[in-house]
Amino acid sequence: MEMLKKACDGLSKIREKSPLVHHITNYVSVNDCANITLAIGASPVMSDEIEDILDLIKIANSLVLNIGTLNKRTVESMIYLGKEANKLNIPVVLDPVGAGATKLRTGTSLKILQEVKVRVLRGNMSEIKSLLGLSGNTKGVDSTEKMDDAEDVAILAAKKFNCTVGISGEVDVISDGERVVKVFNGNSILTRVTGTGCMVTSLTGCFLGAGCDGLTSSTAAYLIMGLAGERAYKESGDNIGTFKVRLFDEIFNINEDRLKEGGKVEEC
Amino acid sequence: MEMLKKACDGLSKIREKSPLVHHITNYVSVNDCANITLAIGASPVMSDEIEDILDLIKIANSLVLNIGTLNKRTVESMIYLGKEANKLNIPVVLDPVGAGATKLRTGTSLKILQEVKVRVLRGNMSEIKSLLGLSGNTKGVDSTEKMDDAEDVAILAAKKFNCTVGISGEVDVISDGERVVKVFNGNSILTRVTGTGCMVTSLTGCFLGAGCDGLTSSTAAYLIMGLAGERAYKESGDNIGTFKVRLFDEIFNINEDRLKEGGKVEEC
Amino acid sequence: MEMLKKACDGLSKIREKSPLVHHITNYVSVNDCANITLAIGASPVMSDEIEDILDLIKIANSLVLNIGTLNKRTVESMIYLGKEANKLNIPVVLDPVGAGATKLRTGTSLKILQEVKVRVLRGNMSEIKSLLGLSGNTKGVDSTEKMDDAEDVAILAAKKFNCTVGISGEVDVISDGERVVKVFNGNSILTRVTGTGCMVTSLTGCFLGAGCDGLTSSTAAYLIMGLAGERAYKESGDNIGTFKVRLFDEIFNINEDRLKEGGKVEEC
Repeated sequence: MEMLKKACDGLSKIREKSPLVHHITNYVSVNDCANITLAIGASPVMSDEIEDILDLIKIANSLVLNIGTLNKRTVESMIYLGKEANKLNIPVVLDPVGAGATKLRTGTSLKILQEVKVRVLRGNMSEIKSLLGLSGNTKGVDSTEKMDDAEDVAILAAKKFNCTVGISGEVDVISDGERVVKVFNGNSILTRVTGTGCMVTSLTGCFLGAGCDGLTSSTAAYLIMGLAGERAYKESGDNIGTFKVRLFDEIFNINEDRLKEGGKVEEC
Repeated sequence: MEMLKKACDGLSKIREKSPLVHHITNYVSVNDCANITLAIGASPVMSDEIEDILDLIKIANSLVLNIGTLNKRTVESMIYLGKEANKLNIPVVLDPVGAGATKLRTGTSLKILQEVKVRVLRGNMSEIKSLLGLSGNTKGVDSTEKMDDAEDVAILAAKKFNCTVGISGEVDVISDGERVVKVFNGNSILTRVTGTGCMVTSLTGCFLGAGCDGLTSSTAAYLIMGLAGERAYKESGDNIGTFKVRLFDEIFNINEDRLKEGGKVEEC
Repeated sequence: MEMLKKACDGLSKIREKSPLVHHITNYVSVNDCANITLAIGASPVMSDEIEDILDLIKIANSLVLNIGTLNKRTVESMIYLGKEANKLNIPVVLDPVGAGATKLRTGTSLKILQEVKVRVLRGNMSEIKSLLGLSGNTKGVDSTEKMDDAEDVAILAAKKFNCTVGISGEVDVISDGERVVKVFNGNSILTRVTGTGCMVTSLTGCFLGAGCDGLTSSTAAYLIMGLAGERAYKESGDNIGTFKVRLFDEIFNINEDRLKEGGKVEEC
């Protein structure tokens, strides 16, 4: 119940402050990430050119690093900007898309985690396990791992990387190394829209930018995406195009009442 | 009334000629820019590789330069292609996204304005003011400036840069340095969809490509986006996903009757 | 009738195996290509960085090469990855977007066809003719050629490039050099959405990844896009935004019954 209240407070803060969320992200879901940031009430900016981002980060409230379509130039930008964000005390969320599937992705994620103080690490089970050296079993950017030991993995990763870790699954599991929170909202159709994971990462950035701590930010992001997905599905049924449209409608209109009514969050 | 008629004539010409509108634009809203170009009846092409664009510009009817996610390679391409367009007498529209927020964006925009003959410059108040050296107050890619002196700023910028200037706002203000036109259509929900400014720039490129002058092109683009936004909102209400879908429906179906019935354009 | 059955079988295989379809594609329609791959039941992955793709291709079931927004770096990646795919016996589909419009596009497409064993080549009439040296008449990325001699052109290209060739048109024409198949499904509104050609190419990659031969894959992809387009248009009418949403709904829900009921495929 405490987490649900914190998520509601965070949402109010986002709508009050409209934090500027800087993204270095992939070219697949970038438009959806910008639109979800606007839909929740924050302000997105996307740029990956070193000369440009040095100025932009000064006015940002949080930083999203997403390696979905990484290349040498953008990896360099991510590490550089992550360090700058640290100096300015701007919180960073990392999405290690496809870690485990390639050495470059695993290596880049680990390098960012080593050189940049990351506030939240958000990925699927395959990605998080691969970063812990427990498994490298990723099917491209999709998880192939079961969620049975998600709690243990989340705690382990949170301790190892000294940050909050959010693991996406049928039940989303979030830990800061001490506490564990589970979000039971969601609908499996979300996995049939590209970038819903990236969008959760962007939402996490919105909450971080509004001043929320890592555990609250990650939980609130999963909660909102899950609840919006449930509600959208009621309107769309098995119509994936319509579902995506309704998902944005729901994110735009999410509010405290709906969160309190529909949110299924459990603190362990 | 004259401008409304010119906008209607321009729309007819777009649908008759289906001008080819070359874009060097950002990776955030590029898909929406291509689709809005198709929706209005023109033909989009996107490319930023020097070797490629040298051939493409020869068959283009207008050129859109949008610095939304600029990098060194694409900035070079923009200036190069802008000059080529000038040689071939192909009209150019520039969207200085985020000018004022970073030195690179302000500098690149000014460099383009200096080295390329730009027919229309379209931005928000923060961006245009920063190019005039009046203010550098941009929140990422969003404006933080009031519109009180928009007329003066538009005239000043038009004279300084020797082109038509369109400034987005609750009321859009367009000037060629002599005349001033205001467009009163629109709905504030348009600011909650990423890339609506970029889309207005693309629409401007469509009208330029159909042979319209700068003042007509900028006015018609704002008019169509504003009116489509108003009409879409009537269908969607506060549902941002649905709103965006309806916006494209409305652009696709805009016609002379709707423009004459709903267009609110004032020439000062 | 045989092809329709093969298409149905292919669809079942996609949904059973969920093949991983690697894309090196353009930044305009990439999100739609990812979503259509998910909608049909396969799994998309997008990456163009040499170091990254060397690992990714090992787990891929097919490779989509689309030159829509090519640049030097990605062209290099395409040829490199195409060769790797050949070594691993992973089928490749090539979309020569805008071939004929620029020397770089024509040259890159021919280079890929020369250095990489391509299973399916899918383009519009202007693109395919330009690769045969028959015409260079492409309006940006749109075809300006009539379809009168499409059968001959498809056979000629299939023989010359030793692959299956699919040519998009009011009637889509596919040939493996021996047989010719025509798909009569579709709706002209499909040409008003950017990237529908790219999406057909991605769908082709899904069927190839499920183990179908080139002729079946290309036919099935056109059939599904055409039939989904017809059905979507019945819901949307002339509303392009709504049409695109419904198109994804239809692809998601396409099944054997609908294909058998609505598919109009003719083997010559």
